[in-house]
Amino acid sequence: MAKVITTHLLESILAEVKPLIGQGRVADYIPALAAVSPYKLGIAISTVEGQHFCAGDASERFSIQSISKVLSLIVAMNHYPEDEIWQRVGKDPSGQPFNSLVQLELEQGKPRNPFINAGALVVCDMLQSRLSAPRQRMLEIVRQLSGAKDIGYDSVVARSEFEHSARNAAIAWLMKSFGNFNNDVSVVLQNYFHYCALQMSCVELARTFLFLADKGKARHLSEPVITPLQSRQVNALMATSGMYQSSGEFAWRVGLPAKSGVGGGIVAIVPHEMAIAVWSPELDSTGNSVAGVAALERLTQQPGHSVF
Amino acid sequence: MAKVITTHLLESILAEVKPLIGQGRVADYIPALAAVSPYKLGIAISTVEGQHFCAGDASERFSIQSISKVLSLIVAMNHYPEDEIWQRVGKDPSGQPFNSLVQLELEQGKPRNPFINAGALVVCDMLQSRLSAPRQRMLEIVRQLSGAKDIGYDSVVARSEFEHSARNAAIAWLMKSFGNFNNDVSVVLQNYFHYCALQMSCVELARTFLFLADKGKARHLSEPVITPLQSRQVNALMATSGMYQSSGEFAWRVGLPAKSGVGGGIVAIVPHEMAIAVWSPELDSTGNSVAGVAALERLTQQPGHSVF
Amino acid sequence: MAKVITTHLLESILAEVKPLIGQGRVADYIPALAAVSPYKLGIAISTVEGQHFCAGDASERFSIQSISKVLSLIVAMNHYPEDEIWQRVGKDPSGQPFNSLVQLELEQGKPRNPFINAGALVVCDMLQSRLSAPRQRMLEIVRQLSGAKDIGYDSVVARSEFEHSARNAAIAWLMKSFGNFNNDVSVVLQNYFHYCALQMSCVELARTFLFLADKGKARHLSEPVITPLQSRQVNALMATSGMYQSSGEFAWRVGLPAKSGVGGGIVAIVPHEMAIAVWSPELDSTGNSVAGVAALERLTQQPGHSVF
Amino acid sequence: MAKVITTHLLESILAEVKPLIGQGRVADYIPALAAVSPYKLGIAISTVEGQHFCAGDASERFSIQSISKVLSLIVAMNHYPEDEIWQRVGKDPSGQPFNSLVQLELEQGKPRNPFINAGALVVCDMLQSRLSAPRQRMLEIVRQLSGAKDIGYDSVVARSEFEHSARNAAIAWLMKSFGNFNNDVSVVLQNYFHYCALQMSCVELARTFLFLADKGKARHLSEPVITPLQSRQVNALMATSGMYQSSGEFAWRVGLPAKSGVGGGIVAIVPHEMAIAVWSPELDSTGNSVAGVAALERLTQQPGHSVF
Repeated sequence: MAKVITTHLLESILAEVKPLIGQGRVADYIPALAAVSPYKLGIAISTVEGQHFCAGDASERFSIQSISKVLSLIVAMNHYPEDEIWQRVGKDPSGQPFNSLVQLELEQGKPRNPFINAGALVVCDMLQSRLSAPRQRMLEIVRQLSGAKDIGYDSVVARSEFEHSARNAAIAWLMKSFGNFNNDVSVVLQNYFHYCALQMSCVELARTFLFLADKGKARHLSEPVITPLQSRQVNALMATSGMYQSSGEFAWRVGLPAKSGVGGGIVAIVPHEMAIAVWSPELDSTGNSVAGVAALERLTQQPGHSVF
Repeated sequence: MAKVITTHLLESILAEVKPLIGQGRVADYIPALAAVSPYKLGIAISTVEGQHFCAGDASERFSIQSISKVLSLIVAMNHYPEDEIWQRVGKDPSGQPFNSLVQLELEQGKPRNPFINAGALVVCDMLQSRLSAPRQRMLEIVRQLSGAKDIGYDSVVARSEFEHSARNAAIAWLMKSFGNFNNDVSVVLQNYFHYCALQMSCVELARTFLFLADKGKARHLSEPVITPLQSRQVNALMATSGMYQSSGEFAWRVGLPAKSGVGGGIVAIVPHEMAIAVWSPELDSTGNSVAGVAALERLTQQPGHSVF
Repeated sequence: MAKVITTHLLESILAEVKPLIGQGRVADYIPALAAVSPYKLGIAISTVEGQHFCAGDASERFSIQSISKVLSLIVAMNHYPEDEIWQRVGKDPSGQPFNSLVQLELEQGKPRNPFINAGALVVCDMLQSRLSAPRQRMLEIVRQLSGAKDIGYDSVVARSEFEHSARNAAIAWLMKSFGNFNNDVSVVLQNYFHYCALQMSCVELARTFLFLADKGKARHLSEPVITPLQSRQVNALMATSGMYQSSGEFAWRVGLPAKSGVGGGIVAIVPHEMAIAVWSPELDSTGNSVAGVAALERLTQQPGHSVF
Repeated sequence: MAKVITTHLLESILAEVKPLIGQGRVADYIPALAAVSPYKLGIAISTVEGQHFCAGDASERFSIQSISKVLSLIVAMNHYPEDEIWQRVGKDPSGQPFNSLVQLELEQGKPRNPFINAGALVVCDMLQSRLSAPRQRMLEIVRQLSGAKDIGYDSVVARSEFEHSARNAAIAWLMKSFGNFNNDVSVVLQNYFHYCALQMSCVELARTFLFLADKGKARHLSEPVITPLQSRQVNALMATSGMYQSSGEFAWRVGLPAKSGVGGGIVAIVPHEMAIAVWSPELDSTGNSVAGVAALERLTQQPGHSVF
């Protein structure tokens, strides 16, 4: 990304997209999410050279929701040989809403990719089989990657999600009926919802995900998080399946690997350069942050600023 | 792509993937395609610096088939304002086989993207409305871009496709029933099949598509083919929807915008660096060249060599 | 049906259902149908003992539309061995709208039953293969069965349907792509739409269909129309698939084998007793006449008056 | 049914269909069902005049499985106003396998009819809301109707079904996500599987279901089981949706309201005449007893012997 990042640039981008607030809708399927102010707006960038920029509400924590699906996949890649993971979940865009059961039934319980709910549930099922304390392990990882020792779960959100978990329970049971889910459904759902209920700020997210811009290596850790090839692969998966049903539209407008969450956060990667996190709670009809996508579009507006 | 391209490198890649021949299946839905030797194997690269490399059967022409879907989109982008195009066809991965009608019915006749059959047919319908001689116009464009004045249509292939066109006719009529197809179905199908029946070599394809690696500009033409932004957008579309149902898997393995055809050809773009064309007629179950994908995977094997 | 039929009974039933006019919607996909007055209301009954009753607009002709699907099936049963028919079309309810392509694609071009559009098109395709003049043959049959020598096609309706035939053309082409459609699509569509455009009155329909109540035998013809077993089978098919997507609801409310058309006509059979025809142009959301269904419900209201 | 029923007739029918054993497959998704001998073959008839006939293994009890779906609907009709039931479950054929989730998702959690799994689960959910002891209540009813005081649940079957209940759990959770399932999923599944695990013989089934042939009245009980109209309605529902996905084919061949179970039993009703129960464990691909359907076909072979 040739354009030099400055705090001023980030501030001017936020000012440009602010008028979009009002065009989307804050997720309201659980009260804890519905209560978030639609006016929150933040952005943070961490570069592979070690610079950090931010603007707006970049230090305020929010519910990262589906952004955690990337993190749980990373953990699974650390604990399983590749083959075992990809026998149970695919790598292709689903072309369906993120919580659909139709495709899952037609395809015999194998989810299309790890970034739709079904796929993330299979990944959580795998973690449950391998880890003694999957929730604690996740906290260790995000605290280590972000450097923020007090990152935690919002237990109100997690409990509320669990109380509204019927659709995800249906997905898990359907996979179980096809032999693609091994552990107790409600135990795995509990973990899954805790991961979704991780509270992180844009600043923390940009730091956490920087390894995906830096060949799998976090600057401050001696051990690589994942291999360079795996890092490239995860980026590829984000590019084709990270933005729910509008991954194609997002690639067209922004052209970066990214993962969004219904809390209004989006993490995007500029390979070999930087990790970006934006937050604005109002969502479009496909579940992506309206102002968040627009901010990323502005950042990458000139040719040469996206990966394409 | 840091690795320096040499003819020797291309030759060694072809030698590595040659043993894969036998694992796929030459397209046999029409006799003219079924007759092609499975042992054909070629690769060509054109760089933005003006270098050209090739190996194997890179100068032999073959039926470019769906690779033409990128070209017809480019022509449409030259003749229509953006909005008119994207009101009639989407930009997202379909998650369905390229000739499926299911999604098209559920989504009221609007194809998911211009690289599935339905989408390309809408694009051809648009060209028919705007151009006096759509087939002649396409020839002018590919001859101009490639520099090869004798590129033409294989009329045996085009006629044979037309004789097996029932599925595509069903798609066109279904779109017509939703008001998303304006011209005579069989006239548009004739053009569509002629575009698919373009005969081009890897060398010619690499030259033709180089503008997508070079901000929409062909080195030897004074006028840009498309704008820099459009070039980036088309690459994005190829990255998410260019490889039929396995665009995600291809991004994972190769990580480049690309478009394949059932003739066994694949065109891939390294933005700002080069255009690559490979050809090997045997296809996997999703319709992509087995050895072709493997060759591209080898070219981009080390991290940093894909866009991710 | 124990209740004695009288003209007075029919008149009182019409009076009872008349207030329902206004609750449905006259078919308006072609102008010729949209122009019919919603206030038309007629009923006619022919019994196996040779009695005829009628009330309201029972002598006015209307477009029988899908009611013709039963007639074309009867003609096919006269010209083909059973096996040949049922290899190409099924006998089970579709559970889908009558013009859906989704199921047809999943089930490889074999329509679920001969009373959805796809199934009737296959039947028409079979007639085209076997008969030298399929339209003339149909006229002979309905004139013979009804005793009305001047029954004919409404050519305005037929032409108008053909001009709006994109969806049915898509269905035919899709079946052709699966090898389940042999003749020229537009020739067969022309016949199909002519059959739909047959103009008949309730009185004529009741007489025409009486053979289905009388073991396949028309009282005034020496040769049986179909065998007793075939008659029972066609009734069974009407009972499970005759009323579009609400065949179950209709069985629940009325409990008679029946076939409806979007012209607002319904033919119902009381096996071994009588044929009933009703007409009221306003349709419910599944395409069945609102007042027509209600009239039949009243006729069969007490237990013992339906087949169940 | 004009043909006089005799024990000899039933015996000769069983002899005729016996050779079909070997063409189907005993249900094997749970061990308790897989262990049943494929050579079991029985038939029983109870008439509205009070006669009882039987042949073969008619007195041996087997797992009635989905036949119980009619009984649970009857109980619900006794405890709920009609409207409440039919707001939560439809009356139309599904056109889908009995345990499919696709349609249920598209139709917002409202099952097509009470004889597919989803519909029966909703009915069981309703019973759970209204009855203090739903399992005990069902036993009272079948014991009362059949006159057999020792009818009970096969707890091995019920437990085994529960252990293989993932698919049904997915269905229940999916309905819960749409607000169409109120009680604890596993409590309702337990009841559902117990109902399926009712052990009854053909003789007991014919006696139990005779009320559906007799206007809702059981001969030996003072109170009607359901009203005459309800009886006719339940028969209609069995005629259109009682035989899984092949209800149309069954109507064509047999022409009687019927309900089958994967234990190999089928109950069929000749309205105003008799109830018939057959048992032969081998199933066809849609889940209906091969020899059972054939026996019913023979019983109703001549025209006039089915309802059509």
